[in-house]
Amino acid sequence: MVVGMLEKVRIVLVNTTHPGNIGGVARAMKNMGLSNLCLVAPKEFPSEVADARASGALDILANAQVVPDLAEAVADCQLVVGTSARERHIPWPIVNPREMASIVVPSPQKTAIVFGREDRGLTNEELHLCHHHVHIPSVEGFSSLNVAAAVQVIAYELRMSQLDLEAGKPDAQHRPQWGTDWDIELADHEELERMFKHLEETLVDIDFLDPENPRQLMPRLRRLLLRSVPDKVEVNVLRGILKSMQKKL
Amino acid sequence: MVVGMLEKVRIVLVNTTHPGNIGGVARAMKNMGLSNLCLVAPKEFPSEVADARASGALDILANAQVVPDLAEAVADCQLVVGTSARERHIPWPIVNPREMASIVVPSPQKTAIVFGREDRGLTNEELHLCHHHVHIPSVEGFSSLNVAAAVQVIAYELRMSQLDLEAGKPDAQHRPQWGTDWDIELADHEELERMFKHLEETLVDIDFLDPENPRQLMPRLRRLLLRSVPDKVEVNVLRGILKSMQKKL
Repeated sequence: MVVGMLEKVRIVLVNTTHPGNIGGVARAMKNMGLSNLCLVAPKEFPSEVADARASGALDILANAQVVPDLAEAVADCQLVVGTSARERHIPWPIVNPREMASIVVPSPQKTAIVFGREDRGLTNEELHLCHHHVHIPSVEGFSSLNVAAAVQVIAYELRMSQLDLEAGKPDAQHRPQWGTDWDIELADHEELERMFKHLEETLVDIDFLDPENPRQLMPRLRRLLLRSVPDKVEVNVLRGILKSMQKKL
Repeated sequence: MVVGMLEKVRIVLVNTTHPGNIGGVARAMKNMGLSNLCLVAPKEFPSEVADARASGALDILANAQVVPDLAEAVADCQLVVGTSARERHIPWPIVNPREMASIVVPSPQKTAIVFGREDRGLTNEELHLCHHHVHIPSVEGFSSLNVAAAVQVIAYELRMSQLDLEAGKPDAQHRPQWGTDWDIELADHEELERMFKHLEETLVDIDFLDPENPRQLMPRLRRLLLRSVPDKVEVNVLRGILKSMQKKL
């Protein structure tokens, strides 16, 4: 096993309602060699039902972090992947689980893979925090997977990709990715969010963004810039531009 | 969807103990476009617990066949695949789920994929009824997947293979990729260059870019934005920001 896989990938569950699902997720993770679980405001945890369904993956439950919101769960991650079932108002680039694994596994970046609520997945606002959206190609009209089943598929693809990498197999999906072998560290989630906040303020200052009627402006700009997965210098350049604009006004 | 996939593949569960798992299997099957379920001597079925966990896949439970032994479940199948977690006394050719899908999906044969008991899988005798053994590459020392999770992985690989086969057909799963099948046309070279020229002028206007000493600023910004491959609306949004900025000065 290549060192880093276990530490690098964090599975994040948002507002899980049924503790049994948390247990099922822990088992799926451990089966596939993942160990880092973070729970955003779960309804019930710890729980005996979760322990029972974990079927021996109790170490993963015992070490799970519990945090109040998604921003905190992904704050130190350079790569954030959101799972998405629905058609979105603003389309975002979507990869399938295999393509996702080909991005995540060879990358040295700290990565969060985020799973939504049992009944309605992730909100648009939560999905707009993500660099990539991954969609499990389910059947139209019955598209919503159980959350533990979804984690199982994602973790399985990570493991398949990891095993290919270890076997020295040329990965058919492998494309050189931004952030690998790069000279400058990628920006983390908090740096990006500060930049977006600064951008939003500046757009209000120059009367381009009407806070009373923001429309889809910030989601569009988020999508454009997150798609690039900016590095730390690029974020500093963008913030420098914003600062100069505000000073000039 | 190629005709035949739904009818051709039968999921067979042997001696399932927990009815919740049967429900989870039905949901995983329906999510991935399978419908043919056969239960070999389940401990408890039908069951309200199974119905609850099926989460809407009740048609699959209602149509499930219940038979007394494995031989009857696979009697009319030309291809029988057994799921195997353990090292066997007599080694059998073992494929991973992806290889299994590449065998099953293009084949016209009626196929059964057989899953064992929660606690100890399939017996050697049962595995010896199978043409192929499929092994989900789980971690040594924690190798036993929940049966619904195992069905999810197998059904996912069948569906991925099926979608690959269908690729190019009008009814194939639609996954928007950046730049292809996008809702908005990508910006062309001239539009991008006009935008970069506008950006450069504005950066000079706000004293962020010194024309006497431009350093690597424009190359950095070009790299950041070109990496995103912007569409026409995004370029218009960026130019709108620059225009508002210049108007405000």
